[in-house]
Amino acid sequence: MDAYSNLLARSREISLLSNTANVLMWDQETYLPPKALDFRSDQLAYLSGQIHKLTTAPEVGEWIKAAEDQGFAADSDEAANIRRWKRTFERETRVPTEFVERFEKEKTLAREQWIDARKHSDFSKFQPSLERLLGFSRQLADFWGYENDRYDALLETYETGTSAAELKAIFDKLRPQLKALYDKRQAQDRPKVELRGVFPESAQAAFNAEVAGAIGYSFETGRVDTTTHPFCTTLGPRDVRITTRYHEDVFGTSLYGVLHEAGHALYELGLPEEKFGAPCGSPISMGIHESQSRLWENQVGRSKAFWKHWYPKAFRHFPDLANYSIDEVTAAMQSVQTSFIRVEADEMTYDFHIMLRFELELALIHGDLEPAGLPSAWNELFEKSFNLKVPDDARGCLQDIHWSFGGFGYFPTYSLGNLNASQLMAAARREIPSLDASLESGEYAPLLKWLREKVHRHGQKYDPQDLMRLATGEPTNPDHHIKYLREKYL
Amino acid sequence: MDAYSNLLARSREISLLSNTANVLMWDQETYLPPKALDFRSDQLAYLSGQIHKLTTAPEVGEWIKAAEDQGFAADSDEAANIRRWKRTFERETRVPTEFVERFEKEKTLAREQWIDARKHSDFSKFQPSLERLLGFSRQLADFWGYENDRYDALLETYETGTSAAELKAIFDKLRPQLKALYDKRQAQDRPKVELRGVFPESAQAAFNAEVAGAIGYSFETGRVDTTTHPFCTTLGPRDVRITTRYHEDVFGTSLYGVLHEAGHALYELGLPEEKFGAPCGSPISMGIHESQSRLWENQVGRSKAFWKHWYPKAFRHFPDLANYSIDEVTAAMQSVQTSFIRVEADEMTYDFHIMLRFELELALIHGDLEPAGLPSAWNELFEKSFNLKVPDDARGCLQDIHWSFGGFGYFPTYSLGNLNASQLMAAARREIPSLDASLESGEYAPLLKWLREKVHRHGQKYDPQDLMRLATGEPTNPDHHIKYLREKYL
Repeated sequence: MDAYSNLLARSREISLLSNTANVLMWDQETYLPPKALDFRSDQLAYLSGQIHKLTTAPEVGEWIKAAEDQGFAADSDEAANIRRWKRTFERETRVPTEFVERFEKEKTLAREQWIDARKHSDFSKFQPSLERLLGFSRQLADFWGYENDRYDALLETYETGTSAAELKAIFDKLRPQLKALYDKRQAQDRPKVELRGVFPESAQAAFNAEVAGAIGYSFETGRVDTTTHPFCTTLGPRDVRITTRYHEDVFGTSLYGVLHEAGHALYELGLPEEKFGAPCGSPISMGIHESQSRLWENQVGRSKAFWKHWYPKAFRHFPDLANYSIDEVTAAMQSVQTSFIRVEADEMTYDFHIMLRFELELALIHGDLEPAGLPSAWNELFEKSFNLKVPDDARGCLQDIHWSFGGFGYFPTYSLGNLNASQLMAAARREIPSLDASLESGEYAPLLKWLREKVHRHGQKYDPQDLMRLATGEPTNPDHHIKYLREKYL
Repeated sequence: MDAYSNLLARSREISLLSNTANVLMWDQETYLPPKALDFRSDQLAYLSGQIHKLTTAPEVGEWIKAAEDQGFAADSDEAANIRRWKRTFERETRVPTEFVERFEKEKTLAREQWIDARKHSDFSKFQPSLERLLGFSRQLADFWGYENDRYDALLETYETGTSAAELKAIFDKLRPQLKALYDKRQAQDRPKVELRGVFPESAQAAFNAEVAGAIGYSFETGRVDTTTHPFCTTLGPRDVRITTRYHEDVFGTSLYGVLHEAGHALYELGLPEEKFGAPCGSPISMGIHESQSRLWENQVGRSKAFWKHWYPKAFRHFPDLANYSIDEVTAAMQSVQTSFIRVEADEMTYDFHIMLRFELELALIHGDLEPAGLPSAWNELFEKSFNLKVPDDARGCLQDIHWSFGGFGYFPTYSLGNLNASQLMAAARREIPSLDASLESGEYAPLLKWLREKVHRHGQKYDPQDLMRLATGEPTNPDHHIKYLREKYL
């Protein structure tokens, strides 16, 4: 075999193992018996170590050198794959396998500490874990290396080719405009619509399945399970599973969980199957991934057009909805209200939650903030941003899972996702004149086709900002999101 | 590290991988989306290959030689582990890893062919797969090697240290006595009791959980899911999961599925946890494994003592049971009736199903029967054994999954399990005078404690027949089973 074929075979071998790890993690979140966690963390640590060994074996470096001389055109998939493999190889060879295994084991156990701490709203139960994870993460960044900002090394994992400085510039542009919009909306003092009733879990599941099917998520290649925190995970090229959560007295929670996670799944399932396991068959970044989930959840799912189509169908599942008009249901799905919890935040206030986390995790990684000081720093910044006093750490700095797996650098991709979603949707509207008509009649195929063509099929061929340029004509620009929010909410 | 420690570490590494494969297989049986099978079979084939490489690496052979010279006492756990590792190493080094991977891939796909064939009761859909699997199995036996009988090489996988000749001797002793018992019972012409009613799935699940908990199966270290074919699988030292199936118009199916599989699970969970991943922490054979499942299902679960305790509790779950007396319920659970399907067979006729399969698979492995001739050979032998005409292959040679994974040599262990269960129970009765009293009051801890002491805790320290000798004073002897059946059914 030539060097390129060897690299491709190795990449697929790693994919067999990493998708196996995904099965173990999916099972851990859904069905693992309580006392089985310890062995599961050993299994995941072992698989991480194996993946790391296969990624950094000396022959991979030799294959990369040889493959670069095989003469692939600079714009070919092969050349793109080689560039990604090289980047990963260079980063990962600087990290000892033993470190990877220890970090992985620490993550699984830290997660339990975090769950316990959040349950009791007691930060001290999580602080030792957080200190260790922060230490691991800073060390990892140092292994990987960076030019100006240690945070950039971590961000690279989630948003390749993007820097903290670029994010800051985007947020500095977004913040005042968003604040102005929010203040205007609040000044309107709209009446709050609450949909009261009982929405049985089984009816929610049936309705969600109908909606998921309509947007293109098939149960032939996926499934929906129940977890405290909804997520999407890829277990194979035809196996992308999502989860959601149910509240029988709240309409919408499980539906928007499904729409969001199905958005992620449609991206994964839209990657070219024949390239599965290679970079050009893999998603490029979390900022692009989140653009897909937020697009289906918010741009599509929280629109008037959506409820125009689904409101009459929802009756078959939920008799209690009949007490409310289509406008009331739409208004309830578009309510704006500051709150403590990020995952419950509406579209207008969501990005304030992200900017707060970005600021704090920058300080943690830079060493300007110690874990012991996190709760007071969080609470202070939260009050400044939201004009609300945080009642306890469960509704404050303990609410999110991300830091418990050392996911520093993850949060800002949510906002990138929001901005990218608005920008992609604006481009789709320009290019598909009948788009809004089709959405009003519940036809989602034209939109999905456009997203597959412009985003999904490229895999990791282009860096995220290049992909945005190709799809929309410019890199991430908050103006589209501001325009979208203004038109929808004011 | 010394050689023994290296072997132990390797054994645990293999256990991490094989238990990972078990997660993939559990998921395949329970929740895998339909189109995901192909990639799953690639993953399982890859893991099989990795396990095989780790098992047969040259350093393992060197460690075994060196460990034999470390001076462990012949009756120590260490010496027993080394013997098992050596046996496995010698067998597996004779099989090329590439063969293992191809066979594994074939098994996953053959299973689908079998499902399809059985669904349509069309043997021709399965015949090509069966031919390939038989070819693989015969070749595997030749790789492994054998003295007299190619079948013995395959049997070794399921019942180490036992030969086809020994099985034949046991069956030759069992067959006429069992036939005589059955004829006597039929001559009694007892009225058939059928429990009519609706037994909702959720009520069955709740009752089953109560019973499973009472015999010692905890949901902290296990779970019960739903599958067409009940099974038990080990995913970790504290993660042994079972499945069952529900018929809302039949009382008992799901309960006996749970009792049977929980019996397997109690064996796995009774193995010494600190030895998990080493031979002395692993089950010794299927004949011993089945003795545990059949013991809880039949000796315990189909007894008068069982229903004396559980009949009053069952009302809380099943109002329809109130139409029947305790004796009628017990009689329904002890009905005897020839039937086409092995898994539905009662205790008296079950072993006839096994003896038929044993005869046929011997002929297949010996080359005296070709797959094309299987349906007619099956039907002929079935009519001879049961005096019933097989209506179709779904109720004939396509009913069982075993041959679809190349499991030749598996079936006879079911009968060994029945015989061992009766023999173990007889020994337990001798040694625990209050046993029957405790069973009547729903106290299962004394029995479980005895089984853990006599069977579970030894892992693979002794060959199955030696273990039977230690636990009961003699090797497998059908007399105990005949005595048990006579007392219970005549």
